[in-house]
Formats: sequence, structure tokens, C-alpha cells
Amino acid sequence: MVEITLVGIGTGHPDHVTLQGQKAIRDAQLILLPRKAGKDDLAHLRRAIIEAAGSNARIVPFDYPERDDSLPYQVRVAQWHDEIAARWADAIGDAKAATLLVWGDPGLYDSTLRIADRLPGARTRVIPGISALQALTAAHAIPFNTVNGPVTITTGRRLRDSGWPEGAETVAVMLDGDCSFATLSENLTIWWGAYLGMTEQVLDHGPLPEAGPRITATRAAERERHGWIMDTYLLRKG
Amino acid sequence: MVEITLVGIGTGHPDHVTLQGQKAIRDAQLILLPRKAGKDDLAHLRRAIIEAAGSNARIVPFDYPERDDSLPYQVRVAQWHDEIAARWADAIGDAKAATLLVWGDPGLYDSTLRIADRLPGARTRVIPGISALQALTAAHAIPFNTVNGPVTITTGRRLRDSGWPEGAETVAVMLDGDCSFATLSENLTIWWGAYLGMTEQVLDHGPLPEAGPRITATRAAERERHGWIMDTYLLRKG
Repeated sequence: MVEITLVGIGTGHPDHVTLQGQKAIRDAQLILLPRKAGKDDLAHLRRAIIEAAGSNARIVPFDYPERDDSLPYQVRVAQWHDEIAARWADAIGDAKAATLLVWGDPGLYDSTLRIADRLPGARTRVIPGISALQALTAAHAIPFNTVNGPVTITTGRRLRDSGWPEGAETVAVMLDGDCSFATLSENLTIWWGAYLGMTEQVLDHGPLPEAGPRITATRAAERERHGWIMDTYLLRKG
Repeated sequence: MVEITLVGIGTGHPDHVTLQGQKAIRDAQLILLPRKAGKDDLAHLRRAIIEAAGSNARIVPFDYPERDDSLPYQVRVAQWHDEIAARWADAIGDAKAATLLVWGDPGLYDSTLRIADRLPGARTRVIPGISALQALTAAHAIPFNTVNGPVTITTGRRLRDSGWPEGAETVAVMLDGDCSFATLSENLTIWWGAYLGMTEQVLDHGPLPEAGPRITATRAAERERHGWIMDTYLLRKG
């Protein structure tokens, strides 16, 4: 029996952390800290948040496994989650509780909950955090939805494969490494943001035909400059 | 020229506030505080958050106008926003800045951004907050989406009028005062929560045919007991 606490820490602004999240980090005994090649900025931010919370937790790093790109998408993801769960189990050893700091919100396009569910006898507690979509609409000071209007949240992969979702008015796109908005020909406005909440934050918006190519160029340049990028965007008809 | 700061305060747990939100409240000079008949619990919570932030802001209450239910929906909402903006302007007077504490996240199914945009010469700053949907999925410890799956966020009104959204896999429903899930006949699982994050929090989940009637009964009883209710739910196929 192990209690896994997942703390959403927001998208890069150390002050995105909630008071609830800060208390959970402060009271943690063991924190699992992922090491991701080329994303030292993020590891640094996690450590700064742990320190600011006044935590004396034992910090146990773990490495992410490689994904086997030869497998079909869903199989590859499932195997990857199995392997990460095994690494967590090693790192936790016989401790009774472990805490993880999760980028954004633990529920939204994040694997951590699914990995936690793979640990035998684990009980998972989730502390919500500011998601990239909230950081995006806040940075642009725009509403997520129109009055009584629906919003579809989807992925870059799905937008590329299936196009503009049937009947959608507003579409928010996560996990898009390929500027999939470029495949759309609808009359749309785009609001885009990268490194949301961080000092490196970059924003752009406008009618898709004009703003789209500009964003593609900016994204490539920023990615080159930092060695990594995290970005998201909202598309609205008209 | 007036700077309006909208601070998302989460859904009722005073510790949903982010460090960023707490600082903004602490540094505010003037806070506009809505008075809503029958929702004293919420006014109380806002005051507790202001106090916990160590704010010395001048607090100016304002009353919400009545909505004219004889008008068509969009017209009624627009007129209501106009009237609230006029009341804000009165309350702000010749101050240069005003701060509002917004339930949930200021971008998500909330009118505050649209009202702020009606003030002449206003510049709006948004501080994201934990939304009811995040509090819901955190309380149930479930992911918002399936792997690479889309989510449609919609309203109770729209679900009643248009049924299950075309091609949707997961649907999150906001602003539903009428248990609109009861109109659906698809094979669905529901995760429901009311007073999310508060000590009064109530949760239920299960296959819709069984859990639906139970939730309708619980909702009516809780609403009767408290005099008000705020709830939200997630529906997933299968």
C-alpha cells in the first residue's frame, strides 16, 4: 500500500503553485523527480518550487525510458507507462508515500495518473494545478469559450488526422509538435503561446492565414534557441 | 484608464488560490465584492481569502442586477453584462485599478472578462485559477481525457438542446441547473461533484442509468439543504 500524491504545479511560473500544492510539497517525505534529457530548465524549476515550499523531502530522481517508435501509438504509450511505473516502484522501494510534481494539471493530457494506477496497491491523491490552456487564455486575457459556446480540447495528432472537429466553434490544441494548425483551411483566429508563465513566454495571435506562418517560424526559432519548447493554442471560428 | 485584475480563486477550497493570486490580492488597492442573494457562504469565502492574503484593500461591494427572463438568451446576457459593467464603473469611481476575485478560472464559463471589456479604457490582467472541471477530476482522481482523446466542454443548456455532441468521447458539462444528463440515452459513465473543494463536497459516479437518478435526487436534497448548489460533471462513453 503506497499513497501517491500528484501535485499540479502549473506551467512554469513558480507562483502558479496553489497553497494546497505548496502544503503537499512541504509535507512530502519522498519526492520522485524526473530527469529529462535537454530539459534542465524544467528540473531547475521543480527544485526551486520544492525549496520555496520549505520541503525537507528525500528527493529520488528517475530517468524516463525511451519510447519504442516502431510500435503502434496506443501500444507504445501503454508499454512506456508500464516501464515508468516499474521505475517508480524501484525508486519508492518500501516507502509508504511518494509525491510527484506534475507540469500543468495532473488530469489534462498527462500520463502521471495512468502510471500511478499501474502501481499495485497504490492510492492516488490529486491536487489540481493551472493547465497550459488556462495560462494561455490568461496571458491573452481572452475567454476560453463564447457565451454558452462549447470548446473541444484535442491533440495535434488528432487535428492532423481528423481535421476541424465536426460542429466545433472553439478548439484548444495540446501536444502539437508539428504546427498542425497549418493543415486547416477554415476561417479561424488563433491565439498561441509558448513557455507560458515563464520569463521566456512568447505570445502571438491573429487570423490564421497571417498569424499561422509567423507562429511556425517563431516556434522553430524559439525551439532552436532553448533546445526545447512547450506550446499550446486556441482556434476560434471567425 | 483603469487596470482590472481578475484573480481566479478556485472552487471553494481557500487553498485553491495560487501564490500568484494571493500576491495580487495582497497588493490590491480596491477589491470589488459581489453580493449575491442566498449565497452568503461564497461571500464569506471571498472575505476569508482576502484576509488570508494579508490584503488591506478597500472593499467595495456591488449588487448583481436581475436578469430579464422575457428576453432571448443572448440579448438577456448582453444586457445583464452591460448593467454589471455600469455598476462596476460606479463602484470604481476615479480609482486607477480594481481587483475581482473570480470563482474558478476567469476564462472558463465566466462573464467577468466580458464585463471588464465593456469598461471604457480598461486594461485587463488575468490570473488563472483552478476550475470546477479540474477540481472534479482531481476529487475523483481520474484523467480528464483518454490517451490522445478529445474532450468537449459544453453547457447543460446546449446538451439539452443538441444532445450528445457529434463524435465526442468525453463531455464535461458546466452551468447545468437541470440535470441535463437525464436526457441522454448513450452508453455513458458519469463522474459528478458538487461544492467541489469545500467541506460540503459531494461526489458520485457510475454507469449513467444507475448513477443518474441517484445524482438527481442527491442534487435536489443538497440544494434544499444549503439553499444553493454549484456542481459539474464529466461523461465518458462506455
